Amino acid sequence: MLKLLPSFRIRLSKRCYAAVLAERNKNFAKVMESDVLAFENFLGKEGVLKDDITLNTTDWTGQFKGPGSVVLFPKNTEQVSAILAYCSKNKLAVVPQGGNTGLVGASIPVHDEVVLSLSKINNSFSFDDTMGILKCDAGFILEDLDNKLASLGYMVPFDLGAKGSCQIGGNIATCAGGIRLIRYGSLHAHLLGLTVVLPDEHGTVLHLGSDIRKDNTSLHTPHLFLGSEGQLGVITSVTMTAVPRPKSVQSAMLAVTSFEKCCEVLKLAKSSLSEVLSSFEFLDEATMKCLKTNLDLHSVLGTPSAFCVLVETSGSNEDHDMAKMGAFLDECLSKELILDGVLAGSSADATKMWQLRESAPLAVSRDGYVYKHDVSLPLKNYYELTNVMRERCGDLAKSVVTYGHVGDGNTHLNITSEKHSEALENLLYPFLYEWVVAHGGSISAEHGIGQLKLPYSELGKQPEERLLVKKLKNIFDPNGILNPYKMI
Amino acid sequence: MLKLLPSFRIRLSKRCYAAVLAERNKNFAKVMESDVLAFENFLGKEGVLKDDITLNTTDWTGQFKGPGSVVLFPKNTEQVSAILAYCSKNKLAVVPQGGNTGLVGASIPVHDEVVLSLSKINNSFSFDDTMGILKCDAGFILEDLDNKLASLGYMVPFDLGAKGSCQIGGNIATCAGGIRLIRYGSLHAHLLGLTVVLPDEHGTVLHLGSDIRKDNTSLHTPHLFLGSEGQLGVITSVTMTAVPRPKSVQSAMLAVTSFEKCCEVLKLAKSSLSEVLSSFEFLDEATMKCLKTNLDLHSVLGTPSAFCVLVETSGSNEDHDMAKMGAFLDECLSKELILDGVLAGSSADATKMWQLRESAPLAVSRDGYVYKHDVSLPLKNYYELTNVMRERCGDLAKSVVTYGHVGDGNTHLNITSEKHSEALENLLYPFLYEWVVAHGGSISAEHGIGQLKLPYSELGKQPEERLLVKKLKNIFDPNGILNPYKMI
Repeated sequence: MLKLLPSFRIRLSKRCYAAVLAERNKNFAKVMESDVLAFENFLGKEGVLKDDITLNTTDWTGQFKGPGSVVLFPKNTEQVSAILAYCSKNKLAVVPQGGNTGLVGASIPVHDEVVLSLSKINNSFSFDDTMGILKCDAGFILEDLDNKLASLGYMVPFDLGAKGSCQIGGNIATCAGGIRLIRYGSLHAHLLGLTVVLPDEHGTVLHLGSDIRKDNTSLHTPHLFLGSEGQLGVITSVTMTAVPRPKSVQSAMLAVTSFEKCCEVLKLAKSSLSEVLSSFEFLDEATMKCLKTNLDLHSVLGTPSAFCVLVETSGSNEDHDMAKMGAFLDECLSKELILDGVLAGSSADATKMWQLRESAPLAVSRDGYVYKHDVSLPLKNYYELTNVMRERCGDLAKSVVTYGHVGDGNTHLNITSEKHSEALENLLYPFLYEWVVAHGGSISAEHGIGQLKLPYSELGKQPEERLLVKKLKNIFDPNGILNPYKMI
Repeated sequence: MLKLLPSFRIRLSKRCYAAVLAERNKNFAKVMESDVLAFENFLGKEGVLKDDITLNTTDWTGQFKGPGSVVLFPKNTEQVSAILAYCSKNKLAVVPQGGNTGLVGASIPVHDEVVLSLSKINNSFSFDDTMGILKCDAGFILEDLDNKLASLGYMVPFDLGAKGSCQIGGNIATCAGGIRLIRYGSLHAHLLGLTVVLPDEHGTVLHLGSDIRKDNTSLHTPHLFLGSEGQLGVITSVTMTAVPRPKSVQSAMLAVTSFEKCCEVLKLAKSSLSEVLSSFEFLDEATMKCLKTNLDLHSVLGTPSAFCVLVETSGSNEDHDMAKMGAFLDECLSKELILDGVLAGSSADATKMWQLRESAPLAVSRDGYVYKHDVSLPLKNYYELTNVMRERCGDLAKSVVTYGHVGDGNTHLNITSEKHSEALENLLYPFLYEWVVAHGGSISAEHGIGQLKLPYSELGKQPEERLLVKKLKNIFDPNGILNPYKMI
């Protein structure tokens, strides 16, 4: 089992917030035997799980656990509608759950909420290979979808470490980011339509948006569900664009001496790699040290340096992409932006580079007790945060390491200590999040709010914006039964 | 002055709709001298136009005219807030107006609504040239913005015929499409944050979203304003991404014998031009005939053909892009997908090709009385619509021509007659829009609903979706004073 992440400690230690979070809403009914019978009536006995529900009431990191009550496995939109109508009439709270791969506890019950798993809604799939438009059930696993598209020369326009388990509906509800956002944009760039079920007494099924690329005939409501964390409605079907699958992928790792030079390299990559640039990732020296010490993973670069940058191109012509990458590296060297650079000569080389980036979270978790973060900042403040925290934590921290999607301004700053330290925690919070907000950043770049960041979710927000969001929630879920005790 | 477009006829002839549309809402007050004095108090005398307001109460096609009452020119968000607070308290209806280049009458008063012009809110501009993030006032003219970005090696990620007049705030409110959507996606792909003023008694100023690429800390409310046609709030500031300006643009025109082959060419372009494909436009033989007869513009292709396709690439390396385009054309020829093809050898050649595409609307307008359309369809039904309408209209139509953004499924079908014909009109409507909806299309791909398509705006929509949209409108604009008698 993984160590507890800081949020859990926050929830325990900052009782001013935690009390509000933790208290069960007494307006909600408790699940009775008669409710279970009703669910079995809708779904059949095989669609209702009463015992051994831990897999669905604990998140994959082991960080979030709710007692839960019952787990439902509807097979289609109509069954979701029946469930939500019933729960709405009977004031039963519900947590929608996709692949349960989130990092903020958004798909885990806090108390005895009914878990509504989308995992069996994964039959319908269609793809228009002229327009590049995908329509599928929400319960499809991302990797399965991508494999289906691969045979048609296309791919899903984002990639996540969790792709073997996460579901497309959950990706929409999270507005998942990942390593190719710099190229293909966020999910807003791709979403066209959704089928959603509302938590009202009719279990209203809404078909929002459309199955075509351009439709300007109504408010663009599907986009409100991106990042809604299952708090507005349950997504059962998704229509989105896919992108032509690249025929050539080139990777290079660069040694850079300062963060300012990393930014210069990024500017140059955008200008000279331009349309083929697909990733611009970043690891600092402390991350490389963790990789070496804790996982025996060594840099592919001969020259030690303060920063490592991983650049990837994806394109349709290998000769062109290699020529662009070569010219880019030459220019980086001739302008003295980099100390050293290695171009992957084979997929094995590329795998080695990506292994460094992708193993960073594990290397850090082996370092001790970890305070993890997922924040966005303007680039001028991106690494300043690391320096500020390094100075602030002093000897209380074992390691202060930063890696992340620097091309998107998204930093995963991790601070480790031998064991949990109340003193360190008090140095970190709320200072760190307040610093991020004060510098125009976001306290959650891609993971969301869920349970984890709820204590800080109001930071930097206008009261008027908060009020608007609550009013919007109320339109979709007037009884507040859908995923309570979370973001909104 | 241009001829009246069909919508206006619809409004006159289909009184079942028009009566609802046209009636002034008696809950709204009329603008009195005391109101004008109050406005002058907020804005100074120079910010209030009482006489000669025709420019702001008539759209550029001359198709939509409202009497209006007064035109206000606030210079900043605070002044917009003061206006909306005042109008809200005094029940004065308001039409926000950007560059007034829309095609559906969305920014023109229907009765005596106050016109709120954003044209003087165009001072603040900033650009982060590492992250490619633009932040500017909503009243900036699109071309001015693009020129500012050009000097920094970037460009705005969409292009419209109206770019010399349209404003970025209006582009957001319209969710403007244009000729490069196939490459850069819709504005959803680029929008990050908005400042909007609500039409409530406080003139609430909301800062929604953020100035960074990734922010998952709240509902993604800015996206609700894309395509909202000024009915939720007044946009005064926009944060969005820009894209690296291409260093090489290649254009080719292809002669194709069937629409099915056009679709095959599109598939091939997506696969082999892939990351550099930036436009895939289309003109049929009837359009080419109109261009020749009415504007003396001749095809650049030696071979007459049923369809002409205009393909454009935009990239960072001319040699690579020319090689890709050359290989693409070779494959088109060897697979017998095209009869003939011409690659632009100079910018003058490219201009000649684009002149054909861009002159199509003018050529059609010179053909007679024009029934214009902007609809989306799945590609399998894209040209079927033209054939169906050609057969249906028979001799009543002079020309049935189609051009458009075929790569986005967006067709501009135009039907002309020597003069307005009630008989033809009755054949066209509501049949055409019902056919589009029955085939999974959209009756407005990129122009919006506004006044023009209001009679048909409910077509194919779920009552539950309509109700949701009305509830959303009510949250932002409880008194319904903002841009009444339009989409919602």
